[in-house]
Amino acid sequence: MSIRKEKKALTRSALINAALQLVEEGGNFATISIREIAKQAGIVPTAFYRHFKDTNELGLNLVDELSSCLRQLIRSAREQSENSTQLINHSIRIFDEHLSSHRELFVFMTQGRSGGTPSIRNAIRNELNVFALEIVNDFSQQQSFPTLNSAQLKMVADLIVSTLAYSATDLLDLNDNPVLKTERLALLEAQCRVIFLGAAEWKAPQ
Amino acid sequence: MSIRKEKKALTRSALINAALQLVEEGGNFATISIREIAKQAGIVPTAFYRHFKDTNELGLNLVDELSSCLRQLIRSAREQSENSTQLINHSIRIFDEHLSSHRELFVFMTQGRSGGTPSIRNAIRNELNVFALEIVNDFSQQQSFPTLNSAQLKMVADLIVSTLAYSATDLLDLNDNPVLKTERLALLEAQCRVIFLGAAEWKAPQ
Repeated sequence: MSIRKEKKALTRSALINAALQLVEEGGNFATISIREIAKQAGIVPTAFYRHFKDTNELGLNLVDELSSCLRQLIRSAREQSENSTQLINHSIRIFDEHLSSHRELFVFMTQGRSGGTPSIRNAIRNELNVFALEIVNDFSQQQSFPTLNSAQLKMVADLIVSTLAYSATDLLDLNDNPVLKTERLALLEAQCRVIFLGAAEWKAPQ
Repeated sequence: MSIRKEKKALTRSALINAALQLVEEGGNFATISIREIAKQAGIVPTAFYRHFKDTNELGLNLVDELSSCLRQLIRSAREQSENSTQLINHSIRIFDEHLSSHRELFVFMTQGRSGGTPSIRNAIRNELNVFALEIVNDFSQQQSFPTLNSAQLKMVADLIVSTLAYSATDLLDLNDNPVLKTERLALLEAQCRVIFLGAAEWKAPQ
C-alpha cells in the first residue's frame, strides 16, 4: 500500500473508532454529528467527507464491524456440549464476554435496530438474520431438535436471537452492577431453557 | 378549571402530540429538538419551558401515555379462551391493533428502550415490567402453568414481553407491506407457542 493509501485507511479507521467511542461514552449514534466524530478523531470536519458521504454511510461500516464480532461470537460459542443446559450456559457466558469486550458495537446494535435510519435498521436486521441462520446450522449439525424442519428451526433460532438482543440492552446498562447483572444473566439462561424445552415439544397447531 | 389553566393544559398536550407526531413521521425522539417540537405545536420555542424543563421531561410524559396504552392493551386482550392457541391468537391480534392505532407510542417505546436517555430507558423498562406483572396475574388467575411458582411465571411473562417488544420494531417497519407483516405475525405467534410449550415443561435444572 502506498503511504498515501495507508494514511487514508488510518484516518478512516480513526473515524470509525471515534464514532464507536462516542457511542460507548453514552451517545446515541443517531444524534452524533460529523463535527463531533471529526473532533474525536482529531481531524477537520471537512476531511470526514473524503471517507464517508454522511454519518449513515459510516453507520453501515459500523454494521460491518458488528458482523465480524457476531461471527467471532458464534465461533467461540461452538463447543462440544453434553446437554442443552451446558450448551446454553456456555453460549451465554461467551455472549456476555463479547458484550463486555465489544460494548460499543452492541450499544450501537441495540440503538440502531430500532432507532437508526431505515438503511441502518435493515443492515442490523440482516446481520441478526445471518446470526440466526448460523444457529440453525448448529441445530441441524447437532440434531438438537430432530422433529423440526428448517423453517421451524429458523423460527426457534430467531426467538433465541430476539431474546439475546433484547437482553443486551439490559445487560449493557447493568455493567456497573454485578449483582443485578448476574440476576439478568440467570433470567436469560432460564428463558433460553424455556425456548429449548418448547422447541422440543413443538408441533403445528391442530 | 380557569381559562388560563385550561389553555395551559391545551398547550401542554399540543407539545406532547407534536413530539409524537414527529416520531411517527420517522424522527428519532433522541434527535428531536425543542425548536422542532415547538414549531410543530405552533408555539414559540421559549413557551416550551413553561411546560417542560427539557425534552427528557417531555419524554417521561410520553412514557405515561405509553403506560395507559399498555394497560388498555392488556384489558382488551383479557378474554375467555378455550385453549392457549386461541389465547395467543387473540392476544397477538389485539397487540397488532394497538401497534397500528398507537403507532407513534410504540415507535417511541422501541427507540427509547435502547436509545433514550437513562431516565427514559428506565421508565420504559418499568412500564414493560408492569406489563409482565399483569401477564403473571393472568397466568395465576387462569392457572395456565400450575407447576410454576411466581418467580417462574414472571420469568415466562418477561420472555413473552421481550418477544412482543422485539417484534414491535419489525412490525412497525412492515406497516406498508401486508404480506411480510402477516408473515412476521405468524412468526411471533409460533414463538409464543414455543414459549407456552416450554413453560408447561419447565423444571429447574437437575
